[in-house]
Amino acid sequence: MPEFFNVLPPSEAFNVVRKNVVVRAVPETIATDEALGRVTASEVLSPEVLPAFPRSTMDGYSVRARDTFGASEGMPAYLEVVGKVSMGKAVDVSLSTGQTAEAYTGGGLAQGADAVVMVEHTQVVNETTIEVTRSVAPGENVVQVGEDVSERDSILPAGQILRPQDIGGLMALGITEIDVFRRPRVAIVSTGDELVPPTEKPGPGIIRDINTFTISSLVTQAGGIPIPQGLVADVFEAQREAAVAGIAEADILVFSAGSSVSSRDMTADVIEMLGEPGVLVHGISIRPGKPSIVGVIDGKPVFGLPGNPVSAMVVFGLLVRPTIYLLSGCAEPPRPATIRARLVRDIASQTGREDHVPVKLSMTDGVQQADPVFGKSNLIYTLVRSDGMVTVPIDDGGLYAGDEVSVRLY
Amino acid sequence: MPEFFNVLPPSEAFNVVRKNVVVRAVPETIATDEALGRVTASEVLSPEVLPAFPRSTMDGYSVRARDTFGASEGMPAYLEVVGKVSMGKAVDVSLSTGQTAEAYTGGGLAQGADAVVMVEHTQVVNETTIEVTRSVAPGENVVQVGEDVSERDSILPAGQILRPQDIGGLMALGITEIDVFRRPRVAIVSTGDELVPPTEKPGPGIIRDINTFTISSLVTQAGGIPIPQGLVADVFEAQREAAVAGIAEADILVFSAGSSVSSRDMTADVIEMLGEPGVLVHGISIRPGKPSIVGVIDGKPVFGLPGNPVSAMVVFGLLVRPTIYLLSGCAEPPRPATIRARLVRDIASQTGREDHVPVKLSMTDGVQQADPVFGKSNLIYTLVRSDGMVTVPIDDGGLYAGDEVSVRLY
Repeated sequence: MPEFFNVLPPSEAFNVVRKNVVVRAVPETIATDEALGRVTASEVLSPEVLPAFPRSTMDGYSVRARDTFGASEGMPAYLEVVGKVSMGKAVDVSLSTGQTAEAYTGGGLAQGADAVVMVEHTQVVNETTIEVTRSVAPGENVVQVGEDVSERDSILPAGQILRPQDIGGLMALGITEIDVFRRPRVAIVSTGDELVPPTEKPGPGIIRDINTFTISSLVTQAGGIPIPQGLVADVFEAQREAAVAGIAEADILVFSAGSSVSSRDMTADVIEMLGEPGVLVHGISIRPGKPSIVGVIDGKPVFGLPGNPVSAMVVFGLLVRPTIYLLSGCAEPPRPATIRARLVRDIASQTGREDHVPVKLSMTDGVQQADPVFGKSNLIYTLVRSDGMVTVPIDDGGLYAGDEVSVRLY
Repeated sequence: MPEFFNVLPPSEAFNVVRKNVVVRAVPETIATDEALGRVTASEVLSPEVLPAFPRSTMDGYSVRARDTFGASEGMPAYLEVVGKVSMGKAVDVSLSTGQTAEAYTGGGLAQGADAVVMVEHTQVVNETTIEVTRSVAPGENVVQVGEDVSERDSILPAGQILRPQDIGGLMALGITEIDVFRRPRVAIVSTGDELVPPTEKPGPGIIRDINTFTISSLVTQAGGIPIPQGLVADVFEAQREAAVAGIAEADILVFSAGSSVSSRDMTADVIEMLGEPGVLVHGISIRPGKPSIVGVIDGKPVFGLPGNPVSAMVVFGLLVRPTIYLLSGCAEPPRPATIRARLVRDIASQTGREDHVPVKLSMTDGVQQADPVFGKSNLIYTLVRSDGMVTVPIDDGGLYAGDEVSVRLY
């Protein structure tokens, strides 16, 4: 029986990727309003101060705060109303001692004012006079110039995935274009004599290709661009040609199937032929997904994923997804959504192996339950019928019914 | 001081939406490989059985299981090798008692075989004979016909968001087109005399529009199609026209700003003019975001969000996002990613009000910490500088430093 070349725990397998790939993230300039989910290519400094003028946070009256000191319901301060600062207009009112001007939420303050009294704490006496029934401190109900952002402030680090509020924050400063990294291109070579495209009706012994589409979707979710290379027969030269073409036009090359050690499994040999250093890991101490390959060719990562759909998805999540984020220039990949749940049945494992088990979620008596779906790893509907996965840590012999577990949702 | 019309807790405000909107989700047929993230419009039944032939899960030999009964290392069973079942080929080998044929992972079994012996449990004696050193039960190492899916099985319910494995599962059955609901269209009317587009340099008293872009991004994230209606001045007739145009071409209408109760806040009046039943909620018992509006016009939801960016994002998450999923025909919106963290500082609140506070995450001594960012809700960088939000439940007076909290990541 042939042996695996170099079996590593999953975390060490990813470290091999990290140490050996060359991150060639290329920046491009795009419109900020199309940059949601993209990764900043450089630190962004503010070109301006925000806000650029002191703004009222309330409807009311801008005042010189000391004119209100001591004011109360019983002993209000009387102020002369000398005008108002309209929304969206330049300030053309100036206050002397004992004077005030109307102010609006988000609008400016009169010249000389340093605080705003909420309209609720005032009373109109006549057209030119109000009572103020509560004192305000200097700065109260005011956003100061630069309170949000100072000029030259670092507003976004390099390597950040842009969120809705980041898009808004950039727009607030007039930054309508932004440098982001190009999305990594992931070539997918799906191998196997038994495969036909899903549009075809399979003959005897034939099945439709699944993994091209599952893997392409996973690549898209991780912010990459999938580049399917089509179906390739179990013929060495055909696979080598597809791999050469794939690695030439992509940043990452993924093989589906052919990653084990039987005579028909030629992915490892193909990777070895592509260049240096070639195969670095063959075999990962997980179930499902043990017969996986990590290689590097001229600084580009190459993965051999098992053909079984469940195994492919597990190994994608452990190795390919973080590699896409790494090559995206992303400093910190987003955390997956998880949920705590109570395990309904035991999950057997063995120490030295990390198990990943699909689970179906349900609520019973107000308790979130996770029921393991023990389908074979070559059944795609094991994944379709489940809501997420539970991990049995590498040092554990299993999990028990009743254990509280963290379910990674998908 | 004018009063809010009808202040409700956030959960009740969404119930008002649910009870009063008419879900008009319209199905459309699209290519399955472009359906990631879309919502199924109807239950999908399997047109075929999967797998269509018994498949080996291992490399080895297909056998009649009873020929191996009692086999062991010490007393192996001897079987005659009469051929092999090649990958992707029709089965042209048939077994009689005492015979076997080579089998490959994912390939078929010889006629008459009911199990597979792993290659590890065999020994080649000569060209036509193997030793089997372990017995197998009927069905062992075999995926039976229909074990993944039977014909007419329900494989996906209506209202499910399609995941990578669902795309793969559909392709496995040759379902290359699928009925999904159209994505809801969300018209966004951004109001305020003080606003200019981000491409412009603001003059005195003027600021750049932020909310059109933040809200558009949030709509996109929730699977909707944002339709910005441009900037509209604080002029009743202009806002009414923009609203009429927006509600005509969209499924949801969102106003940014103008949702409070001062004389300049005209969103509620505009919504009342649009049709029946008009404004149903004015004021929500949250901070920030109290001055929010929920209305319904001819079955379509209309929201008035506060102009403050933080408030707008909070209210979007509580009301607009679930409404987009509701109108998507989505049975169960995806859960947000959350993380447990220890609160670094007290958060003051008051009972009867639900507070939403941005927090910055950090690790200290291996403990995940959440530090509240108490910026004013009109500062967009309060959101840019934070990693997620913590909710103070409506019945709590606050949270304390050291409390373990759940942070909704964004």
